[in-house]
Amino acid sequence: MRMSKGVEWALHTLLNLHMAGGGPVGNGQLAAMHGLSATYLNKQLQLLVKAELLTSIPGAHGGFRLARGLERITLLDVVQAIEGDVRLFHCAEIRCCGRAGEIEPQPTEACPVKAAMVRAEDAWRQALAAQTLAEIQAELDRRPAIARAVHTALN
Amino acid sequence: MRMSKGVEWALHTLLNLHMAGGGPVGNGQLAAMHGLSATYLNKQLQLLVKAELLTSIPGAHGGFRLARGLERITLLDVVQAIEGDVRLFHCAEIRCCGRAGEIEPQPTEACPVKAAMVRAEDAWRQALAAQTLAEIQAELDRRPAIARAVHTALN
Repeated sequence: MRMSKGVEWALHTLLNLHMAGGGPVGNGQLAAMHGLSATYLNKQLQLLVKAELLTSIPGAHGGFRLARGLERITLLDVVQAIEGDVRLFHCAEIRCCGRAGEIEPQPTEACPVKAAMVRAEDAWRQALAAQTLAEIQAELDRRPAIARAVHTALN
Repeated sequence: MRMSKGVEWALHTLLNLHMAGGGPVGNGQLAAMHGLSATYLNKQLQLLVKAELLTSIPGAHGGFRLARGLERITLLDVVQAIEGDVRLFHCAEIRCCGRAGEIEPQPTEACPVKAAMVRAEDAWRQALAAQTLAEIQAELDRRPAIARAVHTALN
């Protein structure tokens, strides 16, 4: 049930683009930053474009650019862009099937099992939504040599 | 990244066993409660036995029995029993690879990306651990006809 590796790739690439000055930076250069497959990274970057976190700039000097500041990108934005469906609990309403379904074929009340599982997921989503990439960048900025080196590597 | 359908099956089956009086109830009867595949349900029940949430009683009048009261079974216990690994974020430490790895091959500080993602997961796990099946049963007990019907069906 783990999320795809694309989430880690997307998070680091968004931070790298910020440290590069915002972009545009080509997919190949972004992939080389972490020794990633350029083909698979490109798929993730297209998902970030679709989610309006990145802008794709065509042409020889084109590439990907941050569509907004890191203070306006939350962890939930990125997880949602890459994973799409961010529901964790698989509910097939089995309470309405088999002998249980005969007892109460069309329950009028919400399933307390589903409600409890959804409450837990909400806590996760809220914690993702409460953290921005700007806060992560602030931690990286404690060692300014990193940002300088990334900026040099991508420009 | 969704969890397997086994989690829903396990949660409802544990509640059904409680309503049946604790068991033992055979796998076939438990599967029939929700029109489930007995083979697949049996695999989930074996995982619950391994996690010491159920006890397996051999013999013609055997079956599965709750190993402890619902007040001592949390949602996290069940998710962990069925899913095993309950980490959501896939971290391959890509910050140590490629050009980024050349900048800082062996970082001494924890990765702030991973730390932020783990904080969110911790909120989810805490919310799962904070809810017991007894609390869910208390909601089901508001309509006592259900527990009576399940008891009749499984005895």
